Amino acid sequence: MTANADQGMNPYTGDPVGSPVLHTSAAEVDRLCAAATSAAPELAGMPLTDRAGLLRSIAAALEAERDAIVALGDAETGLGATRLSSELVRTRVQLEMFASVVDDGGFLDAVIDLPDPAALPAPRPDLRRMLVPLGPVAVFAASNFPLAFSVAGGDTASAFAAGCPVVVKAHPSHPGLSALTGRIVRAALDAAGAPAGTFAVVHGEAAGRTLVRHPAITAVGFTGSLAGGRALFDLASSRPDPIPFYGELGSLNPAVVTPGAVAARGPQVVTGFVGSYTLGTGQFCTKPGLLFLPAGHGLEPLLADAVSSAAVGPMLNSRIRDGYQRGSSGLATVPGVREIVAVSPATAAEGNGFAAAPSLVAVSAADLRANPEPLLEECFGPTAVVVEYGSADELVETLDALPGSLTATLHADPDSEAPLVRRLLDRFAQGAGRIVWDGWPTGVAVTAAMHHGGPWPATTAPLHTSVGVSAIRRFIRPVVYQNVPDALLPEALQAANPLGIPRQVNDPNAG
Amino acid sequence: MTANADQGMNPYTGDPVGSPVLHTSAAEVDRLCAAATSAAPELAGMPLTDRAGLLRSIAAALEAERDAIVALGDAETGLGATRLSSELVRTRVQLEMFASVVDDGGFLDAVIDLPDPAALPAPRPDLRRMLVPLGPVAVFAASNFPLAFSVAGGDTASAFAAGCPVVVKAHPSHPGLSALTGRIVRAALDAAGAPAGTFAVVHGEAAGRTLVRHPAITAVGFTGSLAGGRALFDLASSRPDPIPFYGELGSLNPAVVTPGAVAARGPQVVTGFVGSYTLGTGQFCTKPGLLFLPAGHGLEPLLADAVSSAAVGPMLNSRIRDGYQRGSSGLATVPGVREIVAVSPATAAEGNGFAAAPSLVAVSAADLRANPEPLLEECFGPTAVVVEYGSADELVETLDALPGSLTATLHADPDSEAPLVRRLLDRFAQGAGRIVWDGWPTGVAVTAAMHHGGPWPATTAPLHTSVGVSAIRRFIRPVVYQNVPDALLPEALQAANPLGIPRQVNDPNAG
Repeated sequence: MTANADQGMNPYTGDPVGSPVLHTSAAEVDRLCAAATSAAPELAGMPLTDRAGLLRSIAAALEAERDAIVALGDAETGLGATRLSSELVRTRVQLEMFASVVDDGGFLDAVIDLPDPAALPAPRPDLRRMLVPLGPVAVFAASNFPLAFSVAGGDTASAFAAGCPVVVKAHPSHPGLSALTGRIVRAALDAAGAPAGTFAVVHGEAAGRTLVRHPAITAVGFTGSLAGGRALFDLASSRPDPIPFYGELGSLNPAVVTPGAVAARGPQVVTGFVGSYTLGTGQFCTKPGLLFLPAGHGLEPLLADAVSSAAVGPMLNSRIRDGYQRGSSGLATVPGVREIVAVSPATAAEGNGFAAAPSLVAVSAADLRANPEPLLEECFGPTAVVVEYGSADELVETLDALPGSLTATLHADPDSEAPLVRRLLDRFAQGAGRIVWDGWPTGVAVTAAMHHGGPWPATTAPLHTSVGVSAIRRFIRPVVYQNVPDALLPEALQAANPLGIPRQVNDPNAG
Repeated sequence: MTANADQGMNPYTGDPVGSPVLHTSAAEVDRLCAAATSAAPELAGMPLTDRAGLLRSIAAALEAERDAIVALGDAETGLGATRLSSELVRTRVQLEMFASVVDDGGFLDAVIDLPDPAALPAPRPDLRRMLVPLGPVAVFAASNFPLAFSVAGGDTASAFAAGCPVVVKAHPSHPGLSALTGRIVRAALDAAGAPAGTFAVVHGEAAGRTLVRHPAITAVGFTGSLAGGRALFDLASSRPDPIPFYGELGSLNPAVVTPGAVAARGPQVVTGFVGSYTLGTGQFCTKPGLLFLPAGHGLEPLLADAVSSAAVGPMLNSRIRDGYQRGSSGLATVPGVREIVAVSPATAAEGNGFAAAPSLVAVSAADLRANPEPLLEECFGPTAVVVEYGSADELVETLDALPGSLTATLHADPDSEAPLVRRLLDRFAQGAGRIVWDGWPTGVAVTAAMHHGGPWPATTAPLHTSVGVSAIRRFIRPVVYQNVPDALLPEALQAANPLGIPRQVNDPNAG
């Protein structure tokens, strides 16, 4: 990689893929942001059916280039054709889901208060509120989902659905795929009649920082590391005009196994846990990084076997692989930590590309509380920490010491352990965005009820999700019209409801 | 005022009111925050009907102390018994409105996705989402609404409705009223069975800063100045764990009058405008600070007469009065600005308390664009700037130069000027939270459709409102339950819907 370009590297071999992709200059970022500003009112003003058409046009265009996308994606990420093919389906489904959301119009959250001369403390005028697009949005693509959380991923889809132009900062780990996806998206938007400036992709860290500080940008979507996300959050928050920064950073995703679950199905828990934390070489934001087991669980031999026989996969890039090797080795040096399966330095040898073998350590709950660093920091990759607790009280005390997470998982016996289960579910609801029962957190459904978020450091914005229908809410803000004549109102708020959208109408003379 | 206490002062006379109220020590803030943390799960777990009861109990208790509240409030703020009595009604109505919101349960935004084995790219589990309280909330009271935006105001009411304990930072301008209101609220909460620690009031700037940085606090509501709000926003954003900061800061609230409106009803526009910007001695966040008139409007004599004969009222405190005198005088020194009615230095003389007389200046749109500072900074108090524009294009160009506002107002002829009107309404929707037609922005209805917010610097959080039903959304975040057995789910998500709340249920086998 040169200093002013991103070079894709093949994780299977460590060899370059294609040509370097040049970083975007500050002047070019400025030009693209100006174009996005120009596009914003026109995009916002398109009929909703046309806006939905843009999303469907992108979905179809990606599907049409499936083979090229999967091949280049695998070459740059090593995630495998099966996974990438499935991720492409997800990416398409996300775009189509948001097209349906736009068609439905309920996302506009239209509320009409008819006048009320009897209201206290003063008569109420005619008030009609709807949500409108924020303006140009910056999207930072993730390394670990090169399609579904990247150039044409959920942030981009939800921002378009909201009616916002998007400038994507590509991830340096898959620059060729980012450029390819960008070309496909732009062509699809052009074909569907989107205004010029609706979409652009930029490359390079400096371009990303310029983007976050640019006056044209009204919000940022980000998926990535705690350190990188915090730095950009601080940039966004310290602007002369601070803007919302929706960052998904790091998450430990604790999973708790009660004595009842160990007794009833200890071996299945082991299989599920190891499968989940080593899936995709441990490169999921929902990886269960902490497994709470009752002391004396007797599952250590099964855990050691399962981890030792888990697949050795390539990691996304050398920096991530090195970080995993370093972080995983570091865990083993913490007082009280014992290695169940040590990280293999040999895997990271010449000729293996960016391969990494899974590892696993164990620690008592007391030692975890005594040494929160680095045990309570996310280690990206196929490693996890087994935490052995003595009593229910000690378990809850230790959970209280955890930072916020995207998910929290519980394996328990709902009948014999009901009081403990209730206590744990209540605790989970305070610290996590999704509570998983008798399963594993990897795998995030893209639906209306999904919430992919959580308290800091899981995200920078605990009210919001980056997955599912509600993700659109990050990019729309309310505007209320007071006593505006019907013919001058946006169609969404006119008396006859010409768009036929769901609305709440409050009539003081009704009921 | 001593260094470690707030002393209420009578704006009519400049004399002290009652005894100084001591500032709260850091240790005491810490103790109150710990109590709020303890209260949080218990408050969150109260049945919704009981939570609604807390709000109604506070409303009734305030009403029962009406005479004492209005008398002390007038002595400390000079806002007058009529206004304060009306503000107390509003405060009560807000509490009762949120009680109804809690009773209804729709604010929980419960969404249920039933399992879908056919979903792409993977089968969908059972997912049930609802909103849960964030945790303890800090509320910074405003100087200019000592009841409705203060100790028991909208921020506090919406946070309680969300299920969050509240620690209020009292405004130093009405410390006695803050303490009185605080006692009334605490007693009402105790009587209604709220957990200890649900509510507290602290005094002093240092206590406020401690509060914003305190690990127990999960969000901040603020109404006040741009400088003070920005400083606290920066504190909240620079925490090790940043938290949402909902600040309503400063707003110019432009009002545009077209040639058609001048011709049709120029004198009424003058009367309405002067009445609105001098209302309450110009101490409203929705004060129309900029009036756009077509060059050659011919209304200057009427404006001068109306301003000169407007009431001279006391301002809230000496600091605000001095800031008004200084800021208003400063406007007159900007190149191109002419005084229609100069600010009267004599009004601020001995014996007048904190009285201030209204003033008004005028400037061409070109000079405004050339000298944005201080013309485009809010000057709190009874002053405004008339901006004279040449053409529709120049008008829009000048509006493009304005910062975000809470409101934007239009006086026009909807028939003969329809294209201009549409252009202006579209422009307003990009920069303001509320668009007022043929009226004035002072006076904010507390309803479902109301939006009291806007882009920076009107607020720090353009997605949110501090007035109306939606204000509750600032203090609740989503949690989704995946495959959790029905009996272990929160009642709001159980299959039988025992709470009888509105829910969205998505059944893949239906329809």
